[in-house]
Formats: sequence, C-alpha cells, structure tokens
Amino acid sequence: MVWSDARTGLEILDRWECLELLGAGEVGRIGILEGGAPLVLPVNYALDGEDIIVRSDEGSKVDAARGGSACFEIDGTDGDRRSGWSVVVRGRLEVVTRMDPTLRVRIAELADPWIGSRSHVLRLRSEAISGRRVGPRRAPR
Amino acid sequence: MVWSDARTGLEILDRWECLELLGAGEVGRIGILEGGAPLVLPVNYALDGEDIIVRSDEGSKVDAARGGSACFEIDGTDGDRRSGWSVVVRGRLEVVTRMDPTLRVRIAELADPWIGSRSHVLRLRSEAISGRRVGPRRAPR
Repeated sequence: MVWSDARTGLEILDRWECLELLGAGEVGRIGILEGGAPLVLPVNYALDGEDIIVRSDEGSKVDAARGGSACFEIDGTDGDRRSGWSVVVRGRLEVVTRMDPTLRVRIAELADPWIGSRSHVLRLRSEAISGRRVGPRRAPR
Repeated sequence: MVWSDARTGLEILDRWECLELLGAGEVGRIGILEGGAPLVLPVNYALDGEDIIVRSDEGSKVDAARGGSACFEIDGTDGDRRSGWSVVVRGRLEVVTRMDPTLRVRIAELADPWIGSRSHVLRLRSEAISGRRVGPRRAPR
C-alpha cells in the first residue's frame, strides 16, 4: 500500500523501508546546532538498531552531542533523475562512553579512510524516523 | 595550492571551487530549525550569485524562512568511495517576494517533476561558504 502526503504529493515510506534504506547506506548528513544556527555536515555512519552511530574528533558534532537535538538525513535517486527518496531520523545526540560488543562491530565498519582516527563515538538516539519518495519506484515491489 | 585543516586532516576547498561545485549540482539538503531542533530536508536548488534558491509549499521551510538561519549542504564522491567532498553555505533564509529576470530564469530551471507546483520561492542569503575534500582528487588540476 502506498501512502501519500496530501500536502506535498510525495509518497510516504513506511518504517521498514526507512530502516532498509538506512541499513544500506554509508554516508549521510547530520544536522546540529552551532551557536543557535543549523549546521549540516556529511558523515560516515552505521545503523545500530534504529540509532545512527557516527565518529568524530572534538568539534561541532561533539559539542552538539553534549545534550543536543540532532537530525540525520540520507537521500538518493532511483536510476533516472526524475525520482528520488529521503529518510530523516530525529532525536538526541549523545557521546557514547560504554561500548557493547555489537557496537564495537558497528564502529569497526566505520574505520575507513573517510574517518581517520576520530576519537569520539556519537549516537543519535532515534525518536522519529520518516521517509519520502518522489516519482516512480525503480522496480515494482 | 592545497590548504588542509590541521584538526581534521581534510583539504579545504577555496571559494571558487565551492561555487563551481554548487553551480554544477541540482539536489542538496537544507538544514533549518523546527521547534528549536535541527531538521534536514532534501531540496532541488539553483545558484543565484552566491545565494541558494529553492521552492517550497507552505511548511517547515517557509516557516523557517520567516527570519531564520539556515544551512545548505551538497556533497559527492569522486569516482571510488575513498574520496569525497562537501560544500556548506550558511546564512539567512528569506521568502522571495520580488523577482528580477535573472531570478525568473533560475526558478524556471527548478520547474521539474521533483518540485511540482511549489508556490513559494526561498533565498538562502549566503553569509559563509566552506568546502572540504577527503581523499585524492579524481584528476590532477
């Protein structure tokens, strides 16, 4: 069943589709507050349950993680350029201080050249997940 | 000359490179505030000078445009997945109420199926542009 947003005309993705898209991605963008203004930065990420895990050195992201709201976004185009999708996760950003074995595996997946030796692990604790698609799907489901 | 950010190890793109990348793109993400929390949304955009032009129906973006700070971001990967770049524009979002001929052309470029009949034109008045690259360039310059 396809839900559509009456205001925008976009198709609304269900939670399962959002998590599938989040699980398949590697790079997204995190929106945080810096000096009261929004700042959007690209990040490598991993999905841990429904939370987003990123690594960071000291800086804006770590500062924001000390108790701030944040937003994570991924998007993509489906083949041609007349269709696309996006998934948005909103919640609170936390500095991870205790790692369980599952999280260690997720972190290891992030140890690529995009990252370098970033010393902090941050968790965006998912409070709301939403997704939209515009245009036709790539293939029937 | 290549500048590098000593803290992150990323190469810093100059203003010209940032504007070239912005001019070549079609889809980016806008970060705004909604209820005091960051929200990141994908948008089709056009570059008008150094400002970012987007279209929107009533909603979060238009609400934010009534006097709010915003952030626009584009990114990409250079061929393989071990290099990438991002450009960030920060400034204030405004609802455009008067159109000059140049802006009409920019708006016409946005009239594609991603957009539909979005009734408002928003301008992110650029106050700061920054860009980063990680990993090797695709080709020598």
